[in-house]
Amino acid sequence: MAIEINDEFIRHLEMLIEKKDDHAIIELLAEEHTADIAEIIDELEFDDTTYLFKLLDSEKTAEVLLELDEYDRAKILEILSAKEIAQKIDEMDTDDAADILGELSVERKSKVLSKIEDEEHAKDIADLLQYHEDTAGGLMAKELVKVNENWTVPTCVRKMRSQAQEVTRVHSIYVVDDNNVLKGRLSLKDLLVAPASAIISDVAIPKVDFVNVNEKSDEVARIMQKYDLDAIPVVDDDMRLLGRITIDDILDVITEEADKDYQLAAGLTDDVEADDSLFDLTRARLPWLVLGLFGGLTSASIIGGFDSALNLYPQLFFYTPLIGAMAGNVGVQSSAIIVQGLARDNLRGTTFQRLIKEIGLSLINGIILATLVFAMGFIVNQDIKISFTIASSLIIVIIISSLVGTFVPLLLEKKGIDPAVATGPFITTSNDIFGILIYFSIAKIILGF
Amino acid sequence: MAIEINDEFIRHLEMLIEKKDDHAIIELLAEEHTADIAEIIDELEFDDTTYLFKLLDSEKTAEVLLELDEYDRAKILEILSAKEIAQKIDEMDTDDAADILGELSVERKSKVLSKIEDEEHAKDIADLLQYHEDTAGGLMAKELVKVNENWTVPTCVRKMRSQAQEVTRVHSIYVVDDNNVLKGRLSLKDLLVAPASAIISDVAIPKVDFVNVNEKSDEVARIMQKYDLDAIPVVDDDMRLLGRITIDDILDVITEEADKDYQLAAGLTDDVEADDSLFDLTRARLPWLVLGLFGGLTSASIIGGFDSALNLYPQLFFYTPLIGAMAGNVGVQSSAIIVQGLARDNLRGTTFQRLIKEIGLSLINGIILATLVFAMGFIVNQDIKISFTIASSLIIVIIISSLVGTFVPLLLEKKGIDPAVATGPFITTSNDIFGILIYFSIAKIILGF
Repeated sequence: MAIEINDEFIRHLEMLIEKKDDHAIIELLAEEHTADIAEIIDELEFDDTTYLFKLLDSEKTAEVLLELDEYDRAKILEILSAKEIAQKIDEMDTDDAADILGELSVERKSKVLSKIEDEEHAKDIADLLQYHEDTAGGLMAKELVKVNENWTVPTCVRKMRSQAQEVTRVHSIYVVDDNNVLKGRLSLKDLLVAPASAIISDVAIPKVDFVNVNEKSDEVARIMQKYDLDAIPVVDDDMRLLGRITIDDILDVITEEADKDYQLAAGLTDDVEADDSLFDLTRARLPWLVLGLFGGLTSASIIGGFDSALNLYPQLFFYTPLIGAMAGNVGVQSSAIIVQGLARDNLRGTTFQRLIKEIGLSLINGIILATLVFAMGFIVNQDIKISFTIASSLIIVIIISSLVGTFVPLLLEKKGIDPAVATGPFITTSNDIFGILIYFSIAKIILGF
Repeated sequence: MAIEINDEFIRHLEMLIEKKDDHAIIELLAEEHTADIAEIIDELEFDDTTYLFKLLDSEKTAEVLLELDEYDRAKILEILSAKEIAQKIDEMDTDDAADILGELSVERKSKVLSKIEDEEHAKDIADLLQYHEDTAGGLMAKELVKVNENWTVPTCVRKMRSQAQEVTRVHSIYVVDDNNVLKGRLSLKDLLVAPASAIISDVAIPKVDFVNVNEKSDEVARIMQKYDLDAIPVVDDDMRLLGRITIDDILDVITEEADKDYQLAAGLTDDVEADDSLFDLTRARLPWLVLGLFGGLTSASIIGGFDSALNLYPQLFFYTPLIGAMAGNVGVQSSAIIVQGLARDNLRGTTFQRLIKEIGLSLINGIILATLVFAMGFIVNQDIKISFTIASSLIIVIIISSLVGTFVPLLLEKKGIDPAVATGPFITTSNDIFGILIYFSIAKIILGF
């Protein structure tokens, strides 16, 4: 669709900036989406970025500012004056404006707010700033099209025209009473086909989905996705209409949530990307590796405690990575299914039923794997007592690991902690330790060393 | 918002079905969202489900059918006649109808198609069935509002009214020429404020995003998310308008994609949920566990090959789970970052630059972790040569593991294979083996056994 952003394009742009060929730059970027301009800026030196920001018009740079990642945005906001920021804020929807202002220091924030020309806009933004970013209030925008239930259709259309000017996308038309209490909705389709003589309350649909302003954002996402909603109105405890949340904001919530779970499962904290600095990447990766290291050291000292078996049954010690790996794999599988079930809100039954099911599942998997171990032991002519030890402890390790993998995320969820932290290194490390302890304990019983 | 679906509710409904109290059942479910009714059906016995399906009106059951999971839907479609299915299909949008029909056998499909009353609708659906489900064609619906560039605004509004009747949600109005070639768009807002005397081509916005009908669905998702689009028109190679894709379908694509990546990282194939049968869960879990088992057996035989060190340096054998775990953890971290970068399309630079960065990162992490190993060795009074062996091989294992974790997904992507399969058990198992081989090889060099 647009020009592909490749190295050649970037070099060409850098050359134009160096030559200060403003006309050519504006022409080059005129047809580009703001999301693409943000990507281009990601590739430029900071001085060139600044140059572009001063050159392009305020409406365009306001949108680009929204598309940048937080780090690049912070750098640019720093060099802009409060008045310049206020100009860009003026071009933004209230929800985006509040997000940007939320990233500024308290002092700078109020300075920018005071410089916003449209007082109504400034008031709306200040209003949104009081809500926590992880709630419906933090997601909603003040821009919406609402009509009074007592209006006639022609009055409604006339009033809507002026409202629609301020709203980027008209999703639904909300119907309120004289006290701004949400009474229903009017779809755009209904408006297109409504007779001119009708009163709004006659054509309004009284059934309307809504969320409370304090609802958690992941719950809002779940509701909108489940009921296939393009937009949802946000109300206070008295059902007064405060704003609306649109599906594009929810898309971001869902993507962020999925990314976070994925990263936690992989042993990454903080929201890192491949192109972040070595420092950021280390900060995200090292804590989990240190956890794994101490887990490994614990395992080593447990194995060391069984060193009396070294001379009699050295083979036992060859299988410790196998036991550790299987314990880890099973634990991750179990916990991932639970974490995903909790996220999609489709877990049924009690914890007890779930644990019973895991035992059944582990028995099936365990018996098949134990049979394979036996068969391999037979092929390599291994002492049958050793094979039996490995096979039987494998079954028990698989059962225990899957129970831990199932129980821990359920417990965390109940305690109000994100269950996703239970996946990945946390579960592999603890199951490694349990697994090896169980393995050697069973070996001691069977082989009697 | 709606009634909470708890055990009590389900028991109450079951009792009403048993008593055949149709009036009470209809009243009970009247206010429920179809998504909620689908959830309720998930809890009922099959006979009760059938009873409900015969009782509720066709419009409602058509929507419920769409919300059910594939397994439940297949069971219900089996007991419905071709004519009954055709009635429900008649109520659906073309994209949903094509999805449902795609799940039927070839024979049944043509039978149902022939029973659809609205011939135009049947033709549109048959048309959609030819596209692969993972392409724009497989996602698009035929329902859309389009206007001719030569119409006047009043003609346009009149024609749109009849088109709008058939479209669930009007997102954008597309402008075409006499040959149905996409020329631009008309936003609903523009329509609300346009003067009556204007010709469409005067008020149309010529810049319009679109996708080709053969575009992959994850690429469509990326474009719509990046450019914040509610809907996107789909065109053929000659730019003729074929249909449109709406954001709610994209939400499903994104969620499915994220779920799949997450499951692959956790060692789960197929799309399983916690409530699936033991058979389905085993089929999803066992293959990866068998892979892990053979990996473990390979490690065991590698360790066995170094048994000459058993008497001299038994401690070496205590640290194999530690080496295996660290190799696995690092590999998963590296591959997850790459897989996510590929999915978000935000990887910059060449493979070579990426590998160099991984080496730097691994050196930082490795040196910190090796220092910890040394410190712990000092505390437990361990032979310094053993500590040195563990620490130095840890650094090398971390570097190699992170290079494997980085390189493999990039290679798979290049070969057209989903890079997400490289995360999880695949990378942990292979890194386990590499790690242990490296560890004992280094030990042999340093300690000379």
